[in-house]
Amino acid sequence: MSRRAPVGLSRRGLLGGGAALAGAAGAFAVGRESSHAGSGPASAGDVRQASYAFRGEHQAGITTPAQDRLHFAAFDVVTDSRDDLVDLLQRWTDAAEQMTRGEPTGAGAVDGDVNLPPDDTGEALGLPASGLTITVGFGPSLFRDADGRDRFGLADRLPAALRELPHFPGDALDPARSGGDLCVQACADDPQVAVHAIRNLARLGFGAVSVRWSQLGFGRTSTTSTSQSTPRNLFGFKDGTANVKAEEAAALDEHVWVGADDDPAAGWLTGGSYLVARRITMHVETWDRQTLGDQESFVGRTKGTGAPLSGGDEQTPPDFDMPGSDDQPVIPVDSHVRVVHPDQHGGVRMLRRGYNFVDGSNALGGLDAGLFFLAYVRDPGTHFVPVQLAMSKHDAMAEYLQVTGSALFAVPPGAAPGEHLGQALFA
Amino acid sequence: MSRRAPVGLSRRGLLGGGAALAGAAGAFAVGRESSHAGSGPASAGDVRQASYAFRGEHQAGITTPAQDRLHFAAFDVVTDSRDDLVDLLQRWTDAAEQMTRGEPTGAGAVDGDVNLPPDDTGEALGLPASGLTITVGFGPSLFRDADGRDRFGLADRLPAALRELPHFPGDALDPARSGGDLCVQACADDPQVAVHAIRNLARLGFGAVSVRWSQLGFGRTSTTSTSQSTPRNLFGFKDGTANVKAEEAAALDEHVWVGADDDPAAGWLTGGSYLVARRITMHVETWDRQTLGDQESFVGRTKGTGAPLSGGDEQTPPDFDMPGSDDQPVIPVDSHVRVVHPDQHGGVRMLRRGYNFVDGSNALGGLDAGLFFLAYVRDPGTHFVPVQLAMSKHDAMAEYLQVTGSALFAVPPGAAPGEHLGQALFA
Repeated sequence: MSRRAPVGLSRRGLLGGGAALAGAAGAFAVGRESSHAGSGPASAGDVRQASYAFRGEHQAGITTPAQDRLHFAAFDVVTDSRDDLVDLLQRWTDAAEQMTRGEPTGAGAVDGDVNLPPDDTGEALGLPASGLTITVGFGPSLFRDADGRDRFGLADRLPAALRELPHFPGDALDPARSGGDLCVQACADDPQVAVHAIRNLARLGFGAVSVRWSQLGFGRTSTTSTSQSTPRNLFGFKDGTANVKAEEAAALDEHVWVGADDDPAAGWLTGGSYLVARRITMHVETWDRQTLGDQESFVGRTKGTGAPLSGGDEQTPPDFDMPGSDDQPVIPVDSHVRVVHPDQHGGVRMLRRGYNFVDGSNALGGLDAGLFFLAYVRDPGTHFVPVQLAMSKHDAMAEYLQVTGSALFAVPPGAAPGEHLGQALFA
Repeated sequence: MSRRAPVGLSRRGLLGGGAALAGAAGAFAVGRESSHAGSGPASAGDVRQASYAFRGEHQAGITTPAQDRLHFAAFDVVTDSRDDLVDLLQRWTDAAEQMTRGEPTGAGAVDGDVNLPPDDTGEALGLPASGLTITVGFGPSLFRDADGRDRFGLADRLPAALRELPHFPGDALDPARSGGDLCVQACADDPQVAVHAIRNLARLGFGAVSVRWSQLGFGRTSTTSTSQSTPRNLFGFKDGTANVKAEEAAALDEHVWVGADDDPAAGWLTGGSYLVARRITMHVETWDRQTLGDQESFVGRTKGTGAPLSGGDEQTPPDFDMPGSDDQPVIPVDSHVRVVHPDQHGGVRMLRRGYNFVDGSNALGGLDAGLFFLAYVRDPGTHFVPVQLAMSKHDAMAEYLQVTGSALFAVPPGAAPGEHLGQALFA
């Protein structure tokens, strides 16, 4: 496992005119990682000054300590040329490497020829790297389109596990928020930096890709490192307590990273992962009218500390056998924590990386709010589908949820020096 | 003018079970105000720990140093009862006072009766006050509906200036993003805190109001205090350089606060202001294909430092008479900075408080991105309409903009101790 430590401290602004940049002028913030803290100490270091290496054994943005903000985009490839697609991935690799260092793309927003469009759009000038990570994935439709056509000569490399997810009870998928040939997950501790990254990759892809759908997330709902505290979702509960974390190397190999022998057709995906993206609308107004006791029994944890209803604190394993007062277990059989728990699914775990979202209002006079669920798994067939099926059938919380978007992507390993993202797929 | 200094340091979590809260555990961040810095030093103090007093001569959230994140909502009043409306404003006042102190609403999310719905939704438990301000306004339709009906006995107190804005060239207004009987502007340095505020006010208004539209903004585009640096909009340019600032008491009285003699029908609005809200879609993909030279001539400033094209630095006043190389002024006559400059409009100024937004993608394969323009003025008829008219007719930048939402509100003065927001209107 390649752990990514902060490698840089400041965005090089590359401003014309020699202007000094306050953003690079040594402002340090301590403890912003505690932004959604419910427990645990704030970690030291300014997360906005952090910068994560783009290249490595695995792509950054998976085990990287979950940043606070997200901009996620799915793209349709609009060219038929394999060369154009490879060229796009090369341009994205170059730009991602620059932006994650805190630099503008290309020659920058103001340092080029005034008679040409700038190489960078400029809205992140003066901002630090802000812990930006850029993570790219390939959807099933990149390998074969809806008619089964081999678009780019990749069909024989389609991973067996990269198939459209089945329909689950409760799904109400909007095609305009689902699928995609490519995806880019941009996470950062400043939303303007995340938006800048997606926008510039879209700009660099003009003629090769167009944005199919795009989702902003304002608050992380997961912890991917033991250094982080547990945030809260829009039901007001701590979320992500039992996540696979960066420090669990063996669990990552078992549950997150694709192994060399997993799929003979997809050796190019070794060291990569699968990304499940689900836009989960939460009926928050209905939830808010449930009693505290009911909310806690739906979740299986207390709202205050996040402890399981069987007692202890947030980190205490739930005791699903502990009897309650009415011949039923104290953690109800239809509670969320029980239905999705690894104990119910042969021990499979996911690395979740979701974000809270609010996308304006809905037709009912409430907020269009929810959780943009992101999970990295070694095999969606074993690590996601059974869990989601159980949840949609048996989870008491599912009554307050509706899945309005869905996509699955194969996330290649990290780019080695001199290579572009996904190079092994095209080799 | 009542300047609002930070009055508190931490959110009181009110968690059951005696859990310690990392969010209140003394994590200090220095310099987050430099988040969008292009110049100027970072200010000291942790803005996420800041808390602004809710009560005062003016409502907070106008001259308060512009926080980084926004959640704005417009509401339809769905009750016919004046008493219910007054009761709503009392509940909003109480809740706003609690939340801006960093406390949950009512008894909190976990400290009430387990057999009742919680008084607070809980997603901000453990988060500091984060500089939250809540600012409430009244739309023209609160006084008279579309049929001219006096809904709540307020028609004789309708301010003369509170009339629907005229249609401007370039407006493409979506009724579902326009208007509203009431508005709430929630600004904070943590988006989860801003969202929590809007959501809980909507929840407390159940039966009296429903959300008409709602807008998140991820990055401030204005400075309302000389302590702040100038951020960038999604055209990549510094925005808000010449804004009216909190430190300019005389200018605030002249341009922002409604005077006691301004409107005989609306004495209740003395010390208040008018809020113009405009959702401005920016065609960023088209903009990005313009040359650097063209972009700068459209704006009238350099992209790097924000200096006017007539020279100097960002703060240097533009010299509109300086000749260029082609018998035209060096700052083009159709440049944005010139068209909207106070010198062209009898010296009128606005206090702008806008935010960058991205609301997913559009049908053209690009981002649904733009600027959510918010401006506080003493009189929209003199301080906004002429400037907007000039801009939509003569501004070269207008070709890259489309106004997709619009609303106008009268923002009452701050609530005095023991009073609710807008109490003078109902007296």
